[in-house]
Amino acid sequence: MDKENLSVVLHSPGDLRLEHRPVPEPGPNEVLVQMHSVGICGSDVHYWQHGRIGSYEVKKPMVLGHEAAGRVIKVGSGVKHLQPGDRVAIEPGVPREMDEFFKTGRYNLSPTIFFCATPPDDGNLSRYYKHSANFCYKLPDSVTYEEGALIEPLSVGIYACRRAQVTLGSTVLICGAGPIGLVCLLVAKAMGASHVAISDLIAERLEMAKELGADFLLQVKRGDTPEELAKKVEGQLGRQPQATIECTGVESSIQTAIYATRRGGVVVLVGLGSEMVTVPLLSAAVREVDIRGVFRYSNTWPVAINMLASKQVNVKPLVTHRFPLEEAVQAFETTRQGLGVKVMLKCDPNDQNP
Amino acid sequence: MDKENLSVVLHSPGDLRLEHRPVPEPGPNEVLVQMHSVGICGSDVHYWQHGRIGSYEVKKPMVLGHEAAGRVIKVGSGVKHLQPGDRVAIEPGVPREMDEFFKTGRYNLSPTIFFCATPPDDGNLSRYYKHSANFCYKLPDSVTYEEGALIEPLSVGIYACRRAQVTLGSTVLICGAGPIGLVCLLVAKAMGASHVAISDLIAERLEMAKELGADFLLQVKRGDTPEELAKKVEGQLGRQPQATIECTGVESSIQTAIYATRRGGVVVLVGLGSEMVTVPLLSAAVREVDIRGVFRYSNTWPVAINMLASKQVNVKPLVTHRFPLEEAVQAFETTRQGLGVKVMLKCDPNDQNP
Amino acid sequence: MDKENLSVVLHSPGDLRLEHRPVPEPGPNEVLVQMHSVGICGSDVHYWQHGRIGSYEVKKPMVLGHEAAGRVIKVGSGVKHLQPGDRVAIEPGVPREMDEFFKTGRYNLSPTIFFCATPPDDGNLSRYYKHSANFCYKLPDSVTYEEGALIEPLSVGIYACRRAQVTLGSTVLICGAGPIGLVCLLVAKAMGASHVAISDLIAERLEMAKELGADFLLQVKRGDTPEELAKKVEGQLGRQPQATIECTGVESSIQTAIYATRRGGVVVLVGLGSEMVTVPLLSAAVREVDIRGVFRYSNTWPVAINMLASKQVNVKPLVTHRFPLEEAVQAFETTRQGLGVKVMLKCDPNDQNP
Amino acid sequence: MDKENLSVVLHSPGDLRLEHRPVPEPGPNEVLVQMHSVGICGSDVHYWQHGRIGSYEVKKPMVLGHEAAGRVIKVGSGVKHLQPGDRVAIEPGVPREMDEFFKTGRYNLSPTIFFCATPPDDGNLSRYYKHSANFCYKLPDSVTYEEGALIEPLSVGIYACRRAQVTLGSTVLICGAGPIGLVCLLVAKAMGASHVAISDLIAERLEMAKELGADFLLQVKRGDTPEELAKKVEGQLGRQPQATIECTGVESSIQTAIYATRRGGVVVLVGLGSEMVTVPLLSAAVREVDIRGVFRYSNTWPVAINMLASKQVNVKPLVTHRFPLEEAVQAFETTRQGLGVKVMLKCDPNDQNP
Ligand SMILES: NC(=O)c1ccc[n+]([C@@H]2O[C@H](COP(=O)([O-])OP(=O)(O)OC[C@H]3O[C@@H](n4cnc5c(N)ncnc54)[C@H](O)[C@@H]3O)[C@@H](O)[C@H]2O)c1
Ligand SMILES: NC(=O)c1ccc[n+]([C@@H]2O[C@H](COP(=O)([O-])OP(=O)(O)OC[C@H]3O[C@@H](n4cnc5c(N)ncnc54)[C@H](O)[C@@H]3O)[C@@H](O)[C@H]2O)c1
Ligand SMILES: NC(=O)c1ccc[n+]([C@@H]2O[C@H](COP(=O)([O-])OP(=O)(O)OC[C@H]3O[C@@H](n4cnc5c(N)ncnc54)[C@H](O)[C@@H]3O)[C@@H](O)[C@H]2O)c1
Ligand SMILES: NC(=O)c1ccc[n+]([C@@H]2O[C@H](COP(=O)([O-])OP(=O)(O)OC[C@H]3O[C@@H](n4cnc5c(N)ncnc54)[C@H](O)[C@@H]3O)[C@@H](O)[C@H]2O)c1
Ligand SMILES: [Zn+2]
Ligand SMILES: [Zn+2]
Ligand SMILES: [Zn+2]
Ligand SMILES: [Zn+2]
Repeated sequence: MDKENLSVVLHSPGDLRLEHRPVPEPGPNEVLVQMHSVGICGSDVHYWQHGRIGSYEVKKPMVLGHEAAGRVIKVGSGVKHLQPGDRVAIEPGVPREMDEFFKTGRYNLSPTIFFCATPPDDGNLSRYYKHSANFCYKLPDSVTYEEGALIEPLSVGIYACRRAQVTLGSTVLICGAGPIGLVCLLVAKAMGASHVAISDLIAERLEMAKELGADFLLQVKRGDTPEELAKKVEGQLGRQPQATIECTGVESSIQTAIYATRRGGVVVLVGLGSEMVTVPLLSAAVREVDIRGVFRYSNTWPVAINMLASKQVNVKPLVTHRFPLEEAVQAFETTRQGLGVKVMLKCDPNDQNP
Repeated sequence: MDKENLSVVLHSPGDLRLEHRPVPEPGPNEVLVQMHSVGICGSDVHYWQHGRIGSYEVKKPMVLGHEAAGRVIKVGSGVKHLQPGDRVAIEPGVPREMDEFFKTGRYNLSPTIFFCATPPDDGNLSRYYKHSANFCYKLPDSVTYEEGALIEPLSVGIYACRRAQVTLGSTVLICGAGPIGLVCLLVAKAMGASHVAISDLIAERLEMAKELGADFLLQVKRGDTPEELAKKVEGQLGRQPQATIECTGVESSIQTAIYATRRGGVVVLVGLGSEMVTVPLLSAAVREVDIRGVFRYSNTWPVAINMLASKQVNVKPLVTHRFPLEEAVQAFETTRQGLGVKVMLKCDPNDQNP
Repeated sequence: MDKENLSVVLHSPGDLRLEHRPVPEPGPNEVLVQMHSVGICGSDVHYWQHGRIGSYEVKKPMVLGHEAAGRVIKVGSGVKHLQPGDRVAIEPGVPREMDEFFKTGRYNLSPTIFFCATPPDDGNLSRYYKHSANFCYKLPDSVTYEEGALIEPLSVGIYACRRAQVTLGSTVLICGAGPIGLVCLLVAKAMGASHVAISDLIAERLEMAKELGADFLLQVKRGDTPEELAKKVEGQLGRQPQATIECTGVESSIQTAIYATRRGGVVVLVGLGSEMVTVPLLSAAVREVDIRGVFRYSNTWPVAINMLASKQVNVKPLVTHRFPLEEAVQAFETTRQGLGVKVMLKCDPNDQNP
Repeated sequence: MDKENLSVVLHSPGDLRLEHRPVPEPGPNEVLVQMHSVGICGSDVHYWQHGRIGSYEVKKPMVLGHEAAGRVIKVGSGVKHLQPGDRVAIEPGVPREMDEFFKTGRYNLSPTIFFCATPPDDGNLSRYYKHSANFCYKLPDSVTYEEGALIEPLSVGIYACRRAQVTLGSTVLICGAGPIGLVCLLVAKAMGASHVAISDLIAERLEMAKELGADFLLQVKRGDTPEELAKKVEGQLGRQPQATIECTGVESSIQTAIYATRRGGVVVLVGLGSEMVTVPLLSAAVREVDIRGVFRYSNTWPVAINMLASKQVNVKPLVTHRFPLEEAVQAFETTRQGLGVKVMLKCDPNDQNP
């Protein structure tokens, strides 16, 4: 292990720097990971551009990155299930307290949770990174590092589809075909959904969705009313969807989601938009269309590894660009421009393979 | 049985008449009921005043009333579980089709359901009324007719508390202390809720709530912001409620409900207000506060009868006024003015007891 | 339509006859179906051989068959969603009463349910058969009649996997690779199960399971103890299964199911064996391995049609033999000998295609 | 704080000693508790008499006791929610690993959990005891120490009733009126159960149950068959119970539980008996009577404190005997003889109040 630890550090809006940080020392229940592949998320770019998301504000320099996989190179004294050499995927959220949320299995809701690259917690866009061993999951040989890194966005999809109660023969609408809408699509199909429609404003994004298995594409145009779009979806699917997974955060799309969903169905809100929105809540209420939020995920890594190991889902096409860690700024710029789907940073100078 | 069948018929907004209608003849799976006690609901008054609720419009004369109990006096050829003389409570919604909703136990969502006093279906504010035997439930001797009639509003409370997942030790906020908020209160306590706060604009309604078991009263004043009210509730309960049952339909109260509810909790929408509302949906989404509507109820009568028979809940104080059927107009006027809680019409000229 | 209605009628144990029965006349909510394909089930053979299953006894001649699809040729006056010419799959269980089970969506538990070929109710191994229109489901053009008939056994699999809570990434053990074990396998994979092991005594059955997608095969030998088998399963899967679906009914296999299942998991009992069994219930109790029965199914046809229409599951390989209706006895004999998986009777003399 | 720490230590079967142990020093996330009241459980007596329960064997001296409450006198450096002087109830099970069970909210199933007085882990029948602060719950002033100690057995009841899905208007059978059956009774009533029957062999235990609110008593006699007892229960309740909570562990009582429970209902196994039992599993399977075990509890303390604080349940009558810690052996002997319901040991020489 060398001494330098090149890291992608955000100092203030627009000020992203490649810096050397000390190599961290793992605590008794931690492992030190040599990072291999880290995906760039919309939130990383948002912090870079705006310095904040909602009430989370970058007040001191913060390492970015939370979609990550690497190799364990050192383990703390209390760690039993991992050893140096293990290839691992990293779950970025680690609860700090055994509060009511953790005790009931909903640790993602714990208000004091540590989360990579959510200020003030550092992320893992570095050469070396230490993390709670309990939130590092061993990858089987058949799963690549990049697949391991993709478990993070995939987890949003798994968790969203769970909350949407997608199952065999489900009819599903997904609003938005960005990276998150696309992972929801992959997961919904893997859970047995038989009819999935997906919407977007941008034709290329819908094309990608088609390649990944979408059954119906809904190209949204400025001026389409939510009621009209809902009718179109019903026409495409032959019936109203039981579950709609909203992945844009845009008000009109949330309205469409509510109108489109069948009585007794579920709208899952993944997309994050404005604090206040105007929505047809009465239509949801009297048709008992439940509205459920998604805040990250919990208990998804083991499931995702099972999925990937058994080849039930192919996430590889999601990676459209790769850059060495040194070129992080160009990589961020690529994501900012909305080119491709997922941009990967390759942190190991000696192994830039997938 | 006499031949005349005095009935409370709504002809058009404001035009409520007492008329003689023919005594109906029960079909093979129906029973004829001599009505005893029928409560007046806010919706009855609304139809009377406005001739419509949402898309439901009174286009031809319609008998009002749907909170009812009476005595079976004739049974159809196929009826096995009832016989003349049986005292019954009437569930006003009867699915007409074995559609997906009925087959999955959510018959309240069946779009073609028959429902008393929802146009064009006649209600049961009459001397005699026929109904599907499967939706008439035998009352034990220990349960009065009026208690039987109150099962209808009580059912809204049972169903709302179920959807709110109220259980032992739950902390609950109820918005609105009208008849519906009050039945939610009674049911929440009977399900084991340990801390129940209830809000209203009107001090007398809160007084009534106190008498019925509310632990905390929140008097809402014009000008109070939803965030402030949410804070007050947290202060009263010592923590945020896991479940909030919104029984006003008012936009600001829905906002309060969302802000007030704990992470991972549930807001149940019982109150019906405007089609579009502006709400802090993002706050609900990122804290995974689920929003669930209530459309009437399903599978509540047997539970309610068990509750009443075992004296777990005392609904008798809800009845604050009684009128003979002949004085229906005064009775409606009393409800319209918001006097008391529940007004009962006594349909049997020979027995006006509770 | 011709006047004769050739039917497969069981008179007493061993006495199976091909007889002409009158063509039935559909009631107002019924349809008359010209039968096309009807699969033979183990229970049909059991009635033929023994004249009874448990307390159900053939006391008067009964038509066999309950895995069926055909073409509607006449509809009752009240039927709206079907018309002559529609190709339909038939759900054999039709609740007769709106009892608590039906009202709560568990109509399969209704004690008075009508069920094809469960004495005294006639089945549909005939040229013509009438059935409740609400329990006939229209098949899309892309789904064959035989696939339609296979929805019945497939429904057992869907319902069992639902009760087993199989979902994305699940690890599953299926005990027994008869027709029912195999449909459970197909459904578990379609629901996203990543690791499925299946056991049987017979090597050929396991071979078939392998072809249908089983990940691990467990050949059971007389003398293997349940504890040993449980250990082997853990070895194969790399961990204990979260769900075990028992499809043999054999005592030692139920024991294996309990020992094999992970803490907090589920054993689903599909196989029907002796009334009393000796099982390690304490091991299940202290590890909170829930034990859940399966009695047929409810609400599976629409899901199954979605699955088949979207090609998520391929059931065609299950059909290993076909006979014209006239050769019903040979067909039954084939099933009795355990040859192949599913034997189809072709009831339409003018169309013997799949 | 004095230096001596009188403790009740089990050395080997039958060899129970009062010894001085060092006062422990709390770690960073621990608190030191001056014990006030500790109840004696059947399992404590069982270890005393037999030195083992199943595979748990007392191999080195172990302090007994796990139903406990006391006062915090020292807090570790990382403890935020407690401070010296706080009165607390102690949850005896503390997960040691963040394994899949803990992460999904079922930490009671974690195989490596620490549990007071389950070998080799020491219990809290001492003057001073240190415990994970996260599993110590602050008691409001209105809740006594003894009520705090009773939260442990009460938790078994809460958890059992949850798994039994007891709710408003439920009909319930409880088998066995020992301390555990009685807490199940109290909790079932507090959750809204309207009709509760309870069985026992011993008339006095049933009398106690009657005083605590049981609606029906079933005195079991040697020679009663399970089917007969099931019929009697149905006669008493007027219908079969939806939920049966088995609290004896006796084979014939488990059989009764299965026969007695309604189609679609639940049998919860709390009682722990022989490893292998012979039961009518087929009857459970075809009627979809689910069988669910109970292993201790999870997430019950906060609920129990809410219940006690709001006076929804009165557990005080359960305490029938009290002894100072010094007289532990007499106290154990009292429990062994089955006298009364709950025996309390008073650990604080300066405060022997409830
Ligand atoms: N809840 C969570 O835990 C969580 C986690 C990750 C991401 N997110 C959120 O999910 C959302 C999606 O993330 P992403 O990375 O895919 O973002 P993205 O911006 O790449 O994708 C959003 C897509 O929605 C499309 N879109 C915009 N308006 C639309 C409309 N009216 N109808 C249909 N499509 C429309 C856009 O063209 C774009 O393709 C973001 O709001 C993000 O903040 C939430
Ligand atoms: N979803 C259903 O199936 C269903 C069934 C029955 C009734 N409802 C609806 O439930 C609601 C309540 O019915 P009800 O009969 O009790 O009506 P109601 O009008 O008698 O009671 C509403 C109460 O809310 C109070 N209120 C108004 N604004 C408030 C605010 N900002 N904060 C707190 N309290 C406020 C009012 O003072 C009043 O006491 C109505 O909207 C009704 O349409 C729905
Ligand atoms: N619960 C329901 O609603 C329902 C519905 C349909 C069928 N069933 C039952 O499901 C079971 C399976 O039906 P099927 O048609 O597949 O029957 P089947 O007899 O064709 O298949 C049973 C398989 O189990 C295997 N087997 C026997 N002992 C075994 C053991 N110890 N370990 C492993 N495998 C063993 C047999 O070799 C056979 O292949 C039957 O008991 C049937 O009655 C139940
Ligand atoms: N699963 C768990 O986590 C857990 C926790 C605590 C206790 N337990 C178990 O719960 C059971 C009850 O505990 P307890 O402390 O109340 O024990 P207990 O021995 O005091 O009570 C058992 C009662 O069952 C009665 N009984 C015996 N045979 C009966 C029969 N055939 N029919 C009806 N009643 C009968 C006895 O007379 C006695 O009153 C024990 O088996 C104990 O091991 C389990
Ligand atoms: Zn992200
Ligand atoms: Zn009403
Ligand atoms: Zn069959
Ligand atoms: Zn105990």
